[in-house]
Parts: sequence; C-alpha cells; structure tokens
Amino acid sequence: MQTDIPQVYRHHVFACFQSRPAGHPRGSCGQQGSEPLWKRLGQAIEGLRDPRVAMTATGCLGFCRAGPLMVIYPAGVWYAVRTEADVDEIVASHLGRGEIVERLAIVPQP
Amino acid sequence: MQTDIPQVYRHHVFACFQSRPAGHPRGSCGQQGSEPLWKRLGQAIEGLRDPRVAMTATGCLGFCRAGPLMVIYPAGVWYAVRTEADVDEIVASHLGRGEIVERLAIVPQP
Repeated sequence: MQTDIPQVYRHHVFACFQSRPAGHPRGSCGQQGSEPLWKRLGQAIEGLRDPRVAMTATGCLGFCRAGPLMVIYPAGVWYAVRTEADVDEIVASHLGRGEIVERLAIVPQP
Repeated sequence: MQTDIPQVYRHHVFACFQSRPAGHPRGSCGQQGSEPLWKRLGQAIEGLRDPRVAMTATGCLGFCRAGPLMVIYPAGVWYAVRTEADVDEIVASHLGRGEIVERLAIVPQP
C-alpha cells in the first residue's frame, strides 16, 4: 500500500513476551528463554538514544516453535534470537546501520 | 530500508491492550474503552478469512492520551479508534480494500 502518511518510527521493534507453562504443546517465546534477551534488547535500544527507534512488547506473534521471535517494521523483517550476542548484532546492524542480519532473519509461513 | 525479504503479512495490526488503574496519570487504552473495540476488531479480522492479515496484542504503544490506539504495518498507519463503527470501517477499508481511513489516522509525535 502506498501512503503519504509519514512514518512515526524509522524502526519499530515488536518482541514476543508470551509465556506458557512448561509442557504446553505450543511452547512459547518465554519458555525458550526470551526474558533476558528482551531485557538486553530494551537496554540496547535505549543505548541508541534514537527517538525514531521504538520497542513494543507483544503477546503471541505466532510461529511459537521458532521463538524467541521479534519483527521489525516497516521493513517487516522477522528475527529468531537465541543469544545476547544475537540481540547486540541486530541492534548494531539493523537498528544502528540499517543493515539486515541475514543469518538471523527468518520468513515464517502463515 | 530496502529489503528483498518477502513480507509475511500484507497487513499486520498491532492493538494496544495496556490497562492502568483509574486515575493513573498516564491513562491507558484500556481505561479509554479499548476492550470491546479490540474484541470486535479480532472478530472482524477473523471474518476476512485472509491468512495474510494478522492481529497482535501489544503492551503500551506510547501516546496514551490518544488511545485506544492501533498501528498497521508495513504501511505504518496509526489509528485512534473510538467506536465499533470505527473498527468496522478500518477493517473494511484499510484491511479489506487497502484504502487508508484518513479521518481516523493520526501521526503521533515521539
């Protein structure tokens, strides 16, 4: 969709904070260790001191087996994150320099 | 940012489910009546039966005084929603026909 409406954010990060109990058949990003990763993500984004980069916590983004999952719009790039080093690389590369981290990007199938 | 990565969703709706207690100085989308609106939004999106349209619940999107707030990516269009008729119009127009509802679109300032 073409639009003349200005983008509020250059990068708007949505990170899945869904947690489900251990043994739940769908799993969840929380169960896969998202909590410390998103804490670091929030701190690293604050560290950018860029008012045009924002982070929002979400409920389930779907694709629960692929988690911990985040998606950055308007680019629409989904990342599966495993380690704090992954977080740091996404923040420095995608959010800082505008370069997608190809090795962590996934294209989930609805 | 240019990217060759395919978009997972044609329209990805993020609706703020934040609630704060009555009298809280920031207010919240919940306090401004978001709950029945987002319930209707979810039902209307299901009614589209379009796997390329998704809705995700979020925590605070910021701009709390403007709520109930939603943002649709990748277009990056923010909507302040007051009534169920507003919801129906956004779903039919923006999500269904790809036409922005100008009268409900806002551009919050970070």
